[in-house]
Amino acid sequence: MSVPAAPGDATRAAAERLLRRCDELAAVSASPDGIERVHLSAEHARVNAVAAGWLREAGLATWQDAAGNQWGRLEGAEPGLPALVLGSHLDTVPDAGRYDGILGVVTAIEVAARLAPHRAQLPFAVEVVAFGDEEGTRFGTALLGSRAVAGTWLDGWWDVADAAGTTLREASTAFGLDPAAIADAARRPEDLVGYLELHIEQGPHLEAAGRALGVVTSIAGARRFAGRVVGEARHAGGTPYAKRRDALVGAGQVVVALERLAVETGGIATVGRLQAHPGGVNVVPGLVEFSLDVRAEHDATRDDLVARIEAYARETCAARGLGFELQETHRAPGVYCDAGLTESVVAGIAATGDDDPVQLFSRAGHDAMAVAAITPVAMLFVRCEDGISHHPAEAVTLDDVGLGLDALEAAVRDLARRRSAAR
Amino acid sequence: MSVPAAPGDATRAAAERLLRRCDELAAVSASPDGIERVHLSAEHARVNAVAAGWLREAGLATWQDAAGNQWGRLEGAEPGLPALVLGSHLDTVPDAGRYDGILGVVTAIEVAARLAPHRAQLPFAVEVVAFGDEEGTRFGTALLGSRAVAGTWLDGWWDVADAAGTTLREASTAFGLDPAAIADAARRPEDLVGYLELHIEQGPHLEAAGRALGVVTSIAGARRFAGRVVGEARHAGGTPYAKRRDALVGAGQVVVALERLAVETGGIATVGRLQAHPGGVNVVPGLVEFSLDVRAEHDATRDDLVARIEAYARETCAARGLGFELQETHRAPGVYCDAGLTESVVAGIAATGDDDPVQLFSRAGHDAMAVAAITPVAMLFVRCEDGISHHPAEAVTLDDVGLGLDALEAAVRDLARRRSAAR
Repeated sequence: MSVPAAPGDATRAAAERLLRRCDELAAVSASPDGIERVHLSAEHARVNAVAAGWLREAGLATWQDAAGNQWGRLEGAEPGLPALVLGSHLDTVPDAGRYDGILGVVTAIEVAARLAPHRAQLPFAVEVVAFGDEEGTRFGTALLGSRAVAGTWLDGWWDVADAAGTTLREASTAFGLDPAAIADAARRPEDLVGYLELHIEQGPHLEAAGRALGVVTSIAGARRFAGRVVGEARHAGGTPYAKRRDALVGAGQVVVALERLAVETGGIATVGRLQAHPGGVNVVPGLVEFSLDVRAEHDATRDDLVARIEAYARETCAARGLGFELQETHRAPGVYCDAGLTESVVAGIAATGDDDPVQLFSRAGHDAMAVAAITPVAMLFVRCEDGISHHPAEAVTLDDVGLGLDALEAAVRDLARRRSAAR
Repeated sequence: MSVPAAPGDATRAAAERLLRRCDELAAVSASPDGIERVHLSAEHARVNAVAAGWLREAGLATWQDAAGNQWGRLEGAEPGLPALVLGSHLDTVPDAGRYDGILGVVTAIEVAARLAPHRAQLPFAVEVVAFGDEEGTRFGTALLGSRAVAGTWLDGWWDVADAAGTTLREASTAFGLDPAAIADAARRPEDLVGYLELHIEQGPHLEAAGRALGVVTSIAGARRFAGRVVGEARHAGGTPYAKRRDALVGAGQVVVALERLAVETGGIATVGRLQAHPGGVNVVPGLVEFSLDVRAEHDATRDDLVARIEAYARETCAARGLGFELQETHRAPGVYCDAGLTESVVAGIAATGDDDPVQLFSRAGHDAMAVAAITPVAMLFVRCEDGISHHPAEAVTLDDVGLGLDALEAAVRDLARRRSAAR
């Protein structure tokens, strides 16, 4: 095994461009103090336009689909061939970093630009996709963009509302999309060769292993819930403890217990959003609304953890005279990456000098999970600093970005060779 | 001791009017689903106008002061006499009941209307005040209205902002007030005889004792804080537990511990407002902001409880690598009601048939606490159902409202007799 110290000069120059592009997209934010770009927002429209410009510059034909995803297409040896899709997402969590999803999109565009002069040798078309919703920040329902493409859209989603009360239907219409045309965003399996996604690891394992890149074996499937603890709002001073049904105390017990339950089962459980109502400084909270995200390497572990959390919360809340409700808003089955496509990813990384790349499963969800419903998927992870993600401190190195770019291009070329040889 | 079954017919008719007026004010709300009327809002202006109409109808001269409080004045035997002030507040917590504060204002207006024909016998003027901010819902700083009247306004308050970022200075100007004129709202002690406030109990003690009315001996002084638990926002899936600094878990431990610490000391501690940031469903919370309200019968008990909470929170958060910050936003010393004025309240309740009224301390804060800085204060509590307050279910009976009205009028007449006799 040999691990390269650094990519070549041309690649370093390209990596510099990719980092500049990440910076340029980071400036498109709903917040002056950080990065926030949610589904179907004005910022979504702007980054789609910016990405479309880069795609056209790279020689690709571009379009925005009925779900608000931005696409580009480079024809292969002949027009109309099935496409290998490269991509990731451009939406963000609140106060986000600048590489989660973004790096995968800008790298895919760069790979397409490198392949464009050699399209006559390609046994497939190469498409780039920038999904409009992976995080689920605005509507609580993740992977809206990729699920539209996979044709696994659920009609019930149209009535889900954001924090301001705007439904997905209203937001789509305001964005200029036609909800009735959502099925047009779905791609047919026969038109696709596969889907390759480069993404930052969002965890500390590659850094700990001293490797720039890694191969993803599977993606853990998250379940997400909207939870409520229901008590009674009363005067904070006048109400003796015997008469209090404080929803926040019940919710606090549940939040504190999550860590123990998760460690016991080997899963991960997170309450990322929590708010007490009515929110008066001198009012005992009568209602707490919160989000719950549960994941594990195996779906059975995850479901066991969900069941334990629910049982604990029900019992704890009942003992305090509180109601407890948990409504599932999202459930993604764990997804295994395609063995054949993954061989090309391994070959791609090997081409950069690491011929025995680290294999790891993804604790985070990715668009690839949704796309797997219609075509083989594979993923390539790029090391990030201290595993930090979903935070402004998200960081990658120029060298790692360059190696990721070279590896992704080499993976596509490897796949092209295999497909051509198999003809 | 004899406790009357019910007030007379005339009083019952008046009590019906008072309840109707509470209903009329309840309809002035910023929320379609409940009652919410905060300081310097359009709803504040509207209820001031409604109250001014009732005051003029009762024969009082009216004005709105430089802090947005609504006043009415009935001259006594001769013009310009010092005034006995009757009143309470018209602002509300979010999703409020319809009697907290409001009942005291409408009852004061009715008492003034009853006294108007007899003003020639009054050795003092009678004024009615409807304070514009007691709850502190909008700016987190309570008693803004009564502290302006007491002349204990702090200049630092002008820059305090509401949730939308609007400062108190901006809100005052938008309301049509001149911040530079705030000192004009302050009343001089020599112009006042005292302050009498009728209020619902907001606790279950009168109901448990089977009494409609009670005499308040003292008012517990609350301390309020804006708290922050500071961790690190990271990806909910990718971050192993060893690397998490989850601010919500730390805050949850503090919230859960409050009850134990409060019961140990005999005080009351409430977190009424709590929010996790950045608030992404798949992001470990990096920051939690919350409010903390601490009170007790004696200030020393309260301060001991604050110290224990702070020590526990610092230790618990430090053990998780979390920062903990607590900033005091409000501190009211406990206030003892004036013995002389309270004798008149006892006499007033006795006049309704209960000649040995229940004496109790107020666990809730009241405008009387602020007004006590410039004139003697006393308070009369009206029983409310199940002690519920700061909740839409807040309820009083027609009979109790009538008895409260009669008692407040009788208290004023008793004080007038004493003052006339002392001349």
